[in-house]
Amino acid sequence: MRMYDIIAAKRDGLALTEEQINFFITEYTAGRVPDYQASALLMAVYLRGMSAAETGALTLAMTRSGDSADLSAIPGIKVDKHSTGGVGDKTTLIVCPIAAACGVPIAKMSGRGLGHTGGTVDKLESIPGYRTQLGREEFFRIVQETGISLIGQSGNIAPADKKLYALRDVTATVACLPLIASSIMSKKLAAGSDAILLDVKCGSGAFMKTPEEAAALAEAMVSIGQHTGRKTIALITDMDVPLGSAIGNSLEVQEAVAVLKGSGPADLTQVCLALAEDMLVLGGRGPRESCRAQAREALSSGAALEKLRAVVQAQGGDPAALEDFSRLPSASLCQPLTSPASGYVEAIQTEQAGTASVLLGAGREKKEDAIDYGAGILLKAKVGDYVEKGQPLALLCANSQHKIDAALPLLAASFRLSPQPPALHKLILGRVTEEGTCFF
Amino acid sequence: MRMYDIIAAKRDGLALTEEQINFFITEYTAGRVPDYQASALLMAVYLRGMSAAETGALTLAMTRSGDSADLSAIPGIKVDKHSTGGVGDKTTLIVCPIAAACGVPIAKMSGRGLGHTGGTVDKLESIPGYRTQLGREEFFRIVQETGISLIGQSGNIAPADKKLYALRDVTATVACLPLIASSIMSKKLAAGSDAILLDVKCGSGAFMKTPEEAAALAEAMVSIGQHTGRKTIALITDMDVPLGSAIGNSLEVQEAVAVLKGSGPADLTQVCLALAEDMLVLGGRGPRESCRAQAREALSSGAALEKLRAVVQAQGGDPAALEDFSRLPSASLCQPLTSPASGYVEAIQTEQAGTASVLLGAGREKKEDAIDYGAGILLKAKVGDYVEKGQPLALLCANSQHKIDAALPLLAASFRLSPQPPALHKLILGRVTEEGTCFF
Repeated sequence: MRMYDIIAAKRDGLALTEEQINFFITEYTAGRVPDYQASALLMAVYLRGMSAAETGALTLAMTRSGDSADLSAIPGIKVDKHSTGGVGDKTTLIVCPIAAACGVPIAKMSGRGLGHTGGTVDKLESIPGYRTQLGREEFFRIVQETGISLIGQSGNIAPADKKLYALRDVTATVACLPLIASSIMSKKLAAGSDAILLDVKCGSGAFMKTPEEAAALAEAMVSIGQHTGRKTIALITDMDVPLGSAIGNSLEVQEAVAVLKGSGPADLTQVCLALAEDMLVLGGRGPRESCRAQAREALSSGAALEKLRAVVQAQGGDPAALEDFSRLPSASLCQPLTSPASGYVEAIQTEQAGTASVLLGAGREKKEDAIDYGAGILLKAKVGDYVEKGQPLALLCANSQHKIDAALPLLAASFRLSPQPPALHKLILGRVTEEGTCFF
Repeated sequence: MRMYDIIAAKRDGLALTEEQINFFITEYTAGRVPDYQASALLMAVYLRGMSAAETGALTLAMTRSGDSADLSAIPGIKVDKHSTGGVGDKTTLIVCPIAAACGVPIAKMSGRGLGHTGGTVDKLESIPGYRTQLGREEFFRIVQETGISLIGQSGNIAPADKKLYALRDVTATVACLPLIASSIMSKKLAAGSDAILLDVKCGSGAFMKTPEEAAALAEAMVSIGQHTGRKTIALITDMDVPLGSAIGNSLEVQEAVAVLKGSGPADLTQVCLALAEDMLVLGGRGPRESCRAQAREALSSGAALEKLRAVVQAQGGDPAALEDFSRLPSASLCQPLTSPASGYVEAIQTEQAGTASVLLGAGREKKEDAIDYGAGILLKAKVGDYVEKGQPLALLCANSQHKIDAALPLLAASFRLSPQPPALHKLILGRVTEEGTCFF
């Protein structure tokens, strides 16, 4: 088999065989196919597309390129969750404890933030003492004892995807549906859970800007799940505005605790309950209506908060920090962004808001950058709120005035005011299952 | 300017600007754009195409990447000739002396053979003593004194094309019209002549298999000529069978001399006269009918043969070898390929025949390979000829039995026999000028 023929076949719009895809991934990962041949193939895939069968084969080949977690020793239907990335997205800290409180075993590996989107591992590590790097035995023991463990991704998950992604990033081949879908799903398959809930974000803060684009990505990923024998559901949720009011690691932990106590923002609470409902459905916890009720009960009873406390304690974190937020990292400087006029908040350009939080120190521009766990943004007005001129739109928190000065104009530019109240977005836009796609 | 944006623009089907194309070629040639970005762009060009303006800009950028010959010191309209490559194509050895005999100054640089196609420089070097590497002053002096010089290409003609071609070769992006056309024309522009005659080959031994494909390539190249101010005409000629009867360097020199003496094969003579006619048209030697008559006259009078003898002498070759072929390299072994049956020769698969000649030692598989100037094939039957079982179809000449044994089955497979006489192909299929395309 020759790489040349594989490129030529895709160039001519033919479907690649499983053998061809396996050859490409194996040889490329081993360094025996050069980058220039891989990038020619990627561009051909970008312009010619891939069938569901090809995308499934590509996903499996990338999964097999590295380590795979074998969670079969843990009893029950393990359900994983993945978000395509957003701003203020702390849902894992809420949804996974809810699901665990309802009896779904959670053995979850998460990633770090990059660019304007945050990452669960950074949020967890803002809790003093919390260890995200556990050995396999400890990981399994904690899942079995507390029903939930939340750790960081191992270094050798889907190395083919890592290498290909870096190449796509410099050859203008990132925004390609089968490549995005297989990249995400290859890591989810390697993470070893039996079922996968996907939270596909849609809007100004997300990669997918329209519900149609988000649905197409969701459908591609659910199809991969189907091809590879993992039950998969995708919810399409709004990321046209930041989720909740907190952006930044320690600030988001505090907001997650507020939701688990029943006093969190309504939008975040609603999205979390919807995600939890589908995790329970995937975990086989009964019919949808019952799953919905179980999730609400786990929240109102405090059982979900108890699960978060338990996993923090089990992984070396300070559980008291979940009650006494002064034990969490904080910023020494907080400065309000005041409204330049009176009116309704019509939109918050979410990618800009996320980038402003990076400038404050809450995120990374490059993988190597350090994070300031206490830095971030607290939104004081959200879309639909009426503000008087001079009232605060947001609070910027950082440990240097320089950073606040850099972030302030960007955050200010992200707000759009209007004399009329705006039409409000739906939070849950649709659901994609093996049966099909529903928009709500 | 960023290479990424150039790739993304072409990926999305946009036309690249002259600045973007210049940036790509300059930076790629200098090694500041990596191969993996160049190959992604090449695949996008392959699948999205290029406009005439883009193709012209690409050609000029590649021309400017290296040395350009300035022939302005030589008086008159210098006319260059280029063949897209074939088997048994010794037309330069015949057409250029005809044109020179009619007063068109010929200052021509040619290439070497690779794969199944031969190269003029190799053919010339089979003449004992002939020097293809001349300094600029000697080259000019010979053109001015004898009206013709035929030398090898300088090392630094269009290095961007050389580098890109090597990349296209391993990324399945060779067969792309604007890339083929700009590759050829960038070298022709650098060679400095005022006008260019293109011989676009068509058929089983050519890159372009159908007249339509050949016309499309011819049109793209004529359009580049138009965009860059060089008068350009393309003839589309048959390469469905080898041209003439000789394949191999010294054998082809002998056949060229035969044509110049009026005793060469009819097909080769006809193609050469057609090419010469258009070289004279381009060289401003009067109306087409007059040019046709002048070419015939140069052949029948012996003036063209005299020009070949003059250039051989001027460049250090042995002119007596053109009379006494025993002074040319020859092969120690000659073995006939006999016909397995009686019938008409219906087809000769020309690429196979060319590859058989490479196996005999007459050509190169890799650039570094040495050539056996005396080796080659003499066809004893051509398409349309009737042969009896056991009669020779061809003679294989080489300096080792091992090579003949390797070439014989391939050459045998290239002949197809039929009980009925086949329809005969046209030799000159069409002409492309700035005014349009005519099929004959």
